[in-house]
Formats: sequence, C-alpha cells, structure tokens
Amino acid sequence: MKKIISRQNETIKKIKSLEKRKYREKYAEIILEGYRLIKDAAESGLNIKTVLFVECIDEKKISLVETLSASGAEAIETDLAVFGHVCETVASQGLLAVAEMPSNSLKKIIGDLPGLVIFLDCLQDPGNLGTIIRTADAAGSGLVALSSGSVDAYNAKVLRSAMGSIFHMPVIQKVQGPQFLEELKDRGYKIIAADINGAKPYGEMKYGEKTCLVIGNEGSGIRNEILDICHESVKIPIIGRAESLNAAVAAGILMYDIALRRNC
Amino acid sequence: MKKIISRQNETIKKIKSLEKRKYREKYAEIILEGYRLIKDAAESGLNIKTVLFVECIDEKKISLVETLSASGAEAIETDLAVFGHVCETVASQGLLAVAEMPSNSLKKIIGDLPGLVIFLDCLQDPGNLGTIIRTADAAGSGLVALSSGSVDAYNAKVLRSAMGSIFHMPVIQKVQGPQFLEELKDRGYKIIAADINGAKPYGEMKYGEKTCLVIGNEGSGIRNEILDICHESVKIPIIGRAESLNAAVAAGILMYDIALRRNC
Repeated sequence: MKKIISRQNETIKKIKSLEKRKYREKYAEIILEGYRLIKDAAESGLNIKTVLFVECIDEKKISLVETLSASGAEAIETDLAVFGHVCETVASQGLLAVAEMPSNSLKKIIGDLPGLVIFLDCLQDPGNLGTIIRTADAAGSGLVALSSGSVDAYNAKVLRSAMGSIFHMPVIQKVQGPQFLEELKDRGYKIIAADINGAKPYGEMKYGEKTCLVIGNEGSGIRNEILDICHESVKIPIIGRAESLNAAVAAGILMYDIALRRNC
Repeated sequence: MKKIISRQNETIKKIKSLEKRKYREKYAEIILEGYRLIKDAAESGLNIKTVLFVECIDEKKISLVETLSASGAEAIETDLAVFGHVCETVASQGLLAVAEMPSNSLKKIIGDLPGLVIFLDCLQDPGNLGTIIRTADAAGSGLVALSSGSVDAYNAKVLRSAMGSIFHMPVIQKVQGPQFLEELKDRGYKIIAADINGAKPYGEMKYGEKTCLVIGNEGSGIRNEILDICHESVKIPIIGRAESLNAAVAAGILMYDIALRRNC
C-alpha cells in the first residue's frame, strides 16, 4: 500500500480540493468521511476510487480498507497531520474515501418515477437537506429533486446528516422547477406546496396516488413561479406561539402524512 | 453610554465566561445573540441586564438598545475586535445581550401542568434540542423537561435553533426522570415512549387528554429505567431503507400527532 505524508502530494491536493462544490463537479467525485458512510455507500453500489486512512485505525476499519482495495480502490496510508488537513470532521475516525459522484439524471429516471416525489425549492441549510433526505428515505419516497440555487447534496454536512440515505435513492440536482413540475403534472402527479399560509391544514388534504411535495427556502418559502404551478397548498397549523417550524421538521410531518394517507 | 474596547475589561471577561455552562449556572445568566432573539426574550418578560453592541449597527438595532437601556439594561458600546471575541456567531449582527436565566423549576409549575408535556431523556445534540423546543411551542405543548445528562438548553446553538420558543414556555432542566414521570402518572398523565422498537405504530396509538411524550438519546434511545415507567411505546414505521429518523423529526411527527389527535 502507498503511504503519503506530504500535503503537497498531488493526490492529497486533489482530495482537499473536493471540499469545494466546484471541484466535486469538475471531477465528478465526492468525499465520504467515516466508516459507516463509506460502508453504506459501497454496499449501495457506489464506485469507491480511493480510501485514505491513518495507521492507528482499528481492525474493523482495516478490514473495510482491504475489502475496498480488493474491489479496485486505491488504498493510501497517511499520518494524522495530513489526514487532518483533508478531513473536515472528527467523525471521520481516521478513515475517508473518494467516490464517484452518483450519476442520477432526470432523463434516466423520468420513465420510472416513484409514487412520492420531494421537490426542494432553493433549500439552503445543509443540515436540513441531509435530514430531509434521511426522512424521505424512511418515508419510502423514491426521489428527492433539488432546484438550481439549493445547497449541494454532496456537501460534507449534508452527507453526515443524511446518514447514508443519499445512496438509497436518486437525489437529482439543479432541476429546472417549472419544467419538472409540469412534467410531473403530465404524468398524473398531484403537486402540493408546503406553505405556512397554505389553504388547507394537512389533516384535511387529499393526496393523489402519485404526489409531489414541494418544500421551499428556510427564510422565504417557495418562489411564486413555483407556487403558481402547484395544485394545492397545505399548512401545518401553529397551535402555540412559534412563528414557524423548522423546514426539515415540517417536511417530515408532511412526508409521513402523505406516506401513510395517500392510499386512503 | 459606556464604551469598552479591551478584552481584559472585567465585564467583557464575564460575558465571555458565559459561553460555558458552568459560568451560566454560577451567575444564573445567559447570552442572547442577535436582534430577533433579544427582542423576543425582552417581549417574553426576560430580564435583560446588559446589551453589548458595535457602533455600526442600523437604526432598528439602535432603537432596541435604547428601549432596553430605558428599561434598566446597561448598554455598552464596543469595537468589532472585542465583539468578535465574546460572540460565537456572525448571526449576532453586532448585537448581544446578557439576560437573567429564566427561573423555571418543577416545584413552581407542578400545580399547573399543561396537557402535553415533552420529556427528553439524555438528548445530546443542541440543534435537535432547539428544534424540539421550537416544534413543542408550535404544537402547543406547555412544558419541555430535560433529564440530567442532557445538553444545556441555554447553549448558544440551542437558543439559535429554538428561535425564541425557549422563552414562550417553561423549559426545566436536570429533572430526575423516574420521580418526574411517576409524579405525572399520579396526576393522570399517559406516559408514551418514542421508541424505534415501539409496540404500536403512531397512527394506532390512543393518547390521553393529558399526555407526556418521552424522547431518548440520539444514539441509544430511552434508558431502560425510564422505558419501564412508560405506559406504552410508540414507533414511527420505517417504510424505506433508512435505519432511523433524526430525533427532532421523530419528535415533531409525534408531537403533532398527539396535538391533533389527543382530543379524539
């Protein structure tokens, strides 16, 4: 196995560059930090190209490095200084991988859309996005689509809070909202906007067998041009004194309501 | 108005110390960062003792400083270097206040308990706690109680994600779980544990007119000695491939289910 202990090494410099969206897109590669995320990604069929680790990792992690290496990944040992230079968090536990970015595109999946689609319009917070992807996975949604202007789904914070769910279903990015929603309408989807000023409380909403839930930006909600396309708007009633709900919590309440009631 | 431009100033040193739970508890004071949080706290009746600001804040913020000063708060102007030294985030926008810690105690409120109580058993993540407090407020819960061993509710991250809701209802800390839940039982509460291995899916659960929802630690769930006291355990079914839900999302789904159905 290769050992690198210089920050100036070209491979290390390239891995470091993947912290930025620009370089993730340029190389179509993403960084996975920590044992569970790497294992989940590999099991979900992601192509792991490189695995970087420090000497002192435990048996379980060494065994994963060996498995990945046997499947064609380049295994590189390094020291804590270089590792700390390329790795954003302590949660990585001395193990990091570079994987090929999943190549989900609207074109590829449009013929085989799932019953529950989540469309995120200019969502900004990486923790919210990761949590929404995790909840969408739990609620059995088969697709999360993000508009242009949303946070990058392969941001390290998103990957951490999504807990592997981002590899369980297609997450497509830079979607042109109006065209996408019109396309869904043509295919028989009911498009429902989550809106704090929505017309119906969620308990009264009738969902379609095929439903697309639209969640907007944390501060400003859904853009008007998107709201105009939606069939109906739904609200979660505020009973107490809070002004609003966190976007990921609101999305969770609505996704589960749709998941459990859309066949009613 | 006083102007301080040294980090060595005793007032500045004391404010800086309030970043730590130990000193917040010693002085019974907390830090509020940014216009909205300070305004919300003042309107909720919190005693604002000091307000620290930088010269270049806008009219709206100057007006808030003047109002607080007129109500007895000490207003202190400082420069960006000192402000940056005591203030954890950019979200503060050049304005910070020291307030008296709300003096909620179980004793004070036990005679006047609300219909929906949230008990958090060793919850660790400050973002989750803030979001749960915000959702509890929205769902009309009147009390959030935290066990010993939970994250401090006056941590800066909790305050940020709670968005003022922490001042809308009592949040009590360091609660002895077993005694508290037995006390609630004696007062006619149905105690329901949120548990990934829970006996009933939440749609089938019958809630009491008085209900206490128990949420556990992000990694290990509810401790056994607490689970044993609960009347029933409820789960949110996982339809897809995610292993679990984020604690704040799970709490949100269940709180709203209780809020909307407990009178059914």
